[in-house]
Amino acid sequence: MDAKLGDRVKIVRGTTTYEGVLMPTTTENMVIKLDNGYNIGFDPKKTQIQPIKKREEIKTKAKPPLHQNEDLPLVSILSTGGTIASRVDYRTGAVTSQFTAEDILTAIPELSTIAQYNSQVVYTILSENMRPEYWIKLAQAVHNEIKNGAEGVIITHGTDTMTYTAAALSFMIQTPVPIVLVGSQRSADRPSSDNAINAISAATVATSNIAEVSIVMHATTSDDTCYIHRGTKVRKMHTSRRDAFQSINTQPIATINYPERRITTHIDYTKRGEKKLTLNARLEPKVALIKYAPDANPDVIDHYIENDYKGIVIEGTGLGHVGTDWIPRIKDATEKKIPVVITSQCINGRICDRVYETGRDMLAARIIEGEDLLPEVALVKLMWTLAQTQKPEEIRKIMTTNITGEITPSTTTKFLKK
Amino acid sequence: MDAKLGDRVKIVRGTTTYEGVLMPTTTENMVIKLDNGYNIGFDPKKTQIQPIKKREEIKTKAKPPLHQNEDLPLVSILSTGGTIASRVDYRTGAVTSQFTAEDILTAIPELSTIAQYNSQVVYTILSENMRPEYWIKLAQAVHNEIKNGAEGVIITHGTDTMTYTAAALSFMIQTPVPIVLVGSQRSADRPSSDNAINAISAATVATSNIAEVSIVMHATTSDDTCYIHRGTKVRKMHTSRRDAFQSINTQPIATINYPERRITTHIDYTKRGEKKLTLNARLEPKVALIKYAPDANPDVIDHYIENDYKGIVIEGTGLGHVGTDWIPRIKDATEKKIPVVITSQCINGRICDRVYETGRDMLAARIIEGEDLLPEVALVKLMWTLAQTQKPEEIRKIMTTNITGEITPSTTTKFLKK
Repeated sequence: MDAKLGDRVKIVRGTTTYEGVLMPTTTENMVIKLDNGYNIGFDPKKTQIQPIKKREEIKTKAKPPLHQNEDLPLVSILSTGGTIASRVDYRTGAVTSQFTAEDILTAIPELSTIAQYNSQVVYTILSENMRPEYWIKLAQAVHNEIKNGAEGVIITHGTDTMTYTAAALSFMIQTPVPIVLVGSQRSADRPSSDNAINAISAATVATSNIAEVSIVMHATTSDDTCYIHRGTKVRKMHTSRRDAFQSINTQPIATINYPERRITTHIDYTKRGEKKLTLNARLEPKVALIKYAPDANPDVIDHYIENDYKGIVIEGTGLGHVGTDWIPRIKDATEKKIPVVITSQCINGRICDRVYETGRDMLAARIIEGEDLLPEVALVKLMWTLAQTQKPEEIRKIMTTNITGEITPSTTTKFLKK
Repeated sequence: MDAKLGDRVKIVRGTTTYEGVLMPTTTENMVIKLDNGYNIGFDPKKTQIQPIKKREEIKTKAKPPLHQNEDLPLVSILSTGGTIASRVDYRTGAVTSQFTAEDILTAIPELSTIAQYNSQVVYTILSENMRPEYWIKLAQAVHNEIKNGAEGVIITHGTDTMTYTAAALSFMIQTPVPIVLVGSQRSADRPSSDNAINAISAATVATSNIAEVSIVMHATTSDDTCYIHRGTKVRKMHTSRRDAFQSINTQPIATINYPERRITTHIDYTKRGEKKLTLNARLEPKVALIKYAPDANPDVIDHYIENDYKGIVIEGTGLGHVGTDWIPRIKDATEKKIPVVITSQCINGRICDRVYETGRDMLAARIIEGEDLLPEVALVKLMWTLAQTQKPEEIRKIMTTNITGEITPSTTTKFLKK
């Protein structure tokens, strides 16, 4: 075979011909990246490969000069990695995350009509490698930008763990200006990429009156609407769709129309300047999230106790249940002052107070009811709470009190439901 | 205080008066059950309690005689516990699960116009205490009923783990007749109870042409429609709403209108008599479900390996990712012939093949891609698969092949997505 990595080639498979860039792979199969952004694998021994153009001949477009309008509000763009920050290297087909304000303004010129931008690469990691220490670093960077005059902050983030990061920032920063996380479900090289509209909507929110930590992503599969989700009430609910993000147990804060960029609000929100900038960027990382399933062995609780974990969140069934054999182990944990919070794998709805049978026993074991917290948000909130206090009753109080929109008031709190 | 448990009493709290039955409780507070089914707690030291009627004076209605129409199809009702099978004991207010065909036909007379019924209490357990051994017992009972002439089977089940049981039955039984799981999100004593319409719809499906393991529950918050969900493609998606059950990654098989009982199908389904009755009721219970979250410690994989677990399902992020530090541990497991299946906490959507970075490393670690399996269904399927074979390549093949509607075909299987 003559073709080298990065060359543009044509392959014939059966009656179909594919054209694209030859990509690196570690398997014996080969892969080309098609112009529509998909990759296709094939067996080089069984496939005819026709070189079209050598890697060296493929030129990258020159960048136009960057103009920023100093009359517009100042927005900081902080990059953490992820698809929206990616650029495709057409020589190798590899998606890279080299990213400056210049890169993004070159790619999406409309942004420069909305604000002027500072930018900073806080770190470049895969979203699935996100950790509490990165959340802290990011919170500090956001805090610095706002302190130094940013009138809004945009954080570009991989979509996989974006909601965890949004929750962490929600607890760590009290903000007088919008802090907007944005990403893209399809990389910039795909014709169906959502990155431009998401980024333009994010800039719109960053210069708006909505001074909350929020996530801005496609509202539908069309390119005409984005939602602004509250950072503690949102979940990635689809592996690949552009409208994967959904508000849970609440409405989105608002809808943004594109290209009009009109914001229509749906629920109450914190206004610009309403809160004072404060940073409380401490987290206890040793908190475990355990999902209950029928016959799951409660030994896993001991595993975390033995490994010196400081808190546990359980994703129970229904209104917040676990098998009866879990309850003594939960009691073991709480007696060792390891708080245990119960949430539901139903995702939607509220954990309910109980007076009967296992429910009553769980309360006797001093479990903390996770109200209508998402399991993922309960995890992050418990990390934050354990960095504030070690006193069991204070932990319980913080976990069951709304701090930053993560718990919505119940209409039936006065009633003990069965 | 004069009032005893089971007495009807009135209590005054502030300016509000509540009337109901005094209930058992272990805390120092007391609880009364209101006529609307809610329970309300109060402090007896601070509350005035006025007895209205003694427990002994409260009579239970006499049951009417039971008539069954022998011209109608024969349906078996198998009870496993759960809200739909509950009767409220108005003396104590306690919800009990004593349950016979007579009970249910007395409560819901319309059922006797649809079928004639046999009934059997297979067991009475809280849904959250469900275990693989109960699934096996239930599968055997269902198989027996069909072998003995049942033209349809209704299983009443608590809603918390109903979808796990539906998945288990889907793998263990190949059925020529409908097998319908049904439950209720609100107990029969609540004015908003969904049990009658759910039960009538379940009987309609049990006598229909839809010979699948399905779940029949409210489609909306109104009392006019139920959905028939495929047993392997459904999830409880709300802690308390009557329309909590949703089909995931597929449409519901059909909608049933009430009171017309008209079935409108939405997707292809297996017809009555199309499959031969077979039972394969073996399960390997030692399979773990692990949910990944940022910074989760991969030691938990070792915990399950050390405890002799035979298989692991991971609920990863996005398209099926975990932190890079998990990959060597996954490799440890697969090298010990413990299969590891990756699914997504996004719930909706499909796990995608990958060629890059961590994704490529995960494939090299011999992870099994969970396609569009729900994490809970992947858990049950791996339990079933491990009871069929211990050969890694056979396990991989079964897990990635559609057996009973649990995997929907991908439109892009030919493409390796990034």
